[in-house]
Amino acid sequence: MSDLKFNRVAFIGFGLIGSSLARVMKRDGLAAEIAVCARTKKTLETARRLGLCDKATHDPAEAVAAADLVMVCTPLGAYEAVAKVFGPALSAGTIVSDVGSVKRAAARDLAPHLREGVHLVPGHPVAGTEHSGVDAGFADLFKDRWCILTPQADTDREAVKKITGLWQAAGMKVEIMDADHHDRVLAMTSHLPHLIAYSIVDTATALEEELQKEVVKFSAGGFRDFTRIAASDPVMWRDIMLANRQAILDILGRFNEDLTGLQRAIRRGEGDKLHEAFSRAQKIRLGVIDAKQD
Amino acid sequence: MSDLKFNRVAFIGFGLIGSSLARVMKRDGLAAEIAVCARTKKTLETARRLGLCDKATHDPAEAVAAADLVMVCTPLGAYEAVAKVFGPALSAGTIVSDVGSVKRAAARDLAPHLREGVHLVPGHPVAGTEHSGVDAGFADLFKDRWCILTPQADTDREAVKKITGLWQAAGMKVEIMDADHHDRVLAMTSHLPHLIAYSIVDTATALEEELQKEVVKFSAGGFRDFTRIAASDPVMWRDIMLANRQAILDILGRFNEDLTGLQRAIRRGEGDKLHEAFSRAQKIRLGVIDAKQD
Repeated sequence: MSDLKFNRVAFIGFGLIGSSLARVMKRDGLAAEIAVCARTKKTLETARRLGLCDKATHDPAEAVAAADLVMVCTPLGAYEAVAKVFGPALSAGTIVSDVGSVKRAAARDLAPHLREGVHLVPGHPVAGTEHSGVDAGFADLFKDRWCILTPQADTDREAVKKITGLWQAAGMKVEIMDADHHDRVLAMTSHLPHLIAYSIVDTATALEEELQKEVVKFSAGGFRDFTRIAASDPVMWRDIMLANRQAILDILGRFNEDLTGLQRAIRRGEGDKLHEAFSRAQKIRLGVIDAKQD
Repeated sequence: MSDLKFNRVAFIGFGLIGSSLARVMKRDGLAAEIAVCARTKKTLETARRLGLCDKATHDPAEAVAAADLVMVCTPLGAYEAVAKVFGPALSAGTIVSDVGSVKRAAARDLAPHLREGVHLVPGHPVAGTEHSGVDAGFADLFKDRWCILTPQADTDREAVKKITGLWQAAGMKVEIMDADHHDRVLAMTSHLPHLIAYSIVDTATALEEELQKEVVKFSAGGFRDFTRIAASDPVMWRDIMLANRQAILDILGRFNEDLTGLQRAIRRGEGDKLHEAFSRAQKIRLGVIDAKQD
């Protein structure tokens, strides 16, 4: 495992994902030193208290000084701003990676600010909970989940290998993928479901107050699962929606067509069509169970 | 607890809900005898093997003979047909209740077939899992959940009291409600979420095969929660959609408006609007947690 070791790892942003990865690194001794850069004093204090960082700073440039790995863990909308600041402070040979949910936008916002000789390996550990922040992290978050890396064809192979090894140490299965393809797959598996969950909770929020109370009271019938998904961090999800706009609008268009079809079947009382559509769902569900993603 | 005891309880239909209630009755000695009527031989055999029934039959009329409680637990679309058959075999004083998700349609389909002196107390235990059938039942399914009863104003008070006590014995909190109001609340908390979940899984099903495989593989990002909801029994849900058509189409119309608003905000890059909508969701989520429905 010694070739997995980093000398100094800098986390830019330190929420659920970043702090969970730091927990893995501390547990397994994968980094000699961890520097954490976060916006709020509270996050830095918590990171220290939990023993997850050796150096805490609000300045991205200070955090990445002498780092051989920089892991960007902010919401996607902050990538460009932080890269502008830390880019000039990077040494040649440093690996820059991230954990964002949209890979094309991640590369677009980070790459222009990295100097020659810095290796960019965008990554996306497909794991998470509805909770946010450094307190919510835990080392087992990544266990048996997939991590998708989207390096360019000419990216340094050793750098890709080191990031692959890091996520494998966290318990993940790693897959290399084209960034655009990643964004299209995730629009379906993650971005659309979150948008829909937010939307349905929004519909409930707009009900008259009395009815709204009852919706909460009787949420066990299905609604509460949506509220859980929709409890995810609003800033992170705002940024994902904007960063993956095209793929999300495309898959949302398809979803709208399908939903309109079901709506029409309900209006017309076409039970056969409903039964057919509802029956197809079980096949997909069995696939999810087979793929051990549940 | 002795006034909770029934002499002979007949279950018409015996899936997740019915068999879970029978488990409670057997556990607590609430029925001297349980008769089960089911369509398939397999269900009756399983009911016997699990010790949940003393008499097994395919004939609703035979099941209800001498029963003081008839619990209808079939999908909603079968109510009228079974009531036609068992109605004439009921004795005066018998209580007829059910567990269906749409209360106006339940009363509409059962009431005309009940003779004078039979007490109809429609009910809906708001509890369930994505699993179906007699094997999937368990006595604790109802614990700490709500059960909604929708009797008419002139329904026999003793009958309502007995059904209330029965569900309380199963661990439920019981609320009396107007049938139309119930159907409107449940359209939001349960019927729309299921329709949406079925629809999104349907969208995934229509993707090219290669992409579909990846959607299953990377489902941990949100999609798998929808597949779980959409794994519910398709016949039961077809019947619910048809039986509560008006309320579902109404709430679906509101949902479509809200989703279109979010779609437009994504297209226009209006991050503030997205953030505002996504932030509202957390308030509802905290309500669900406060109401101990999670």
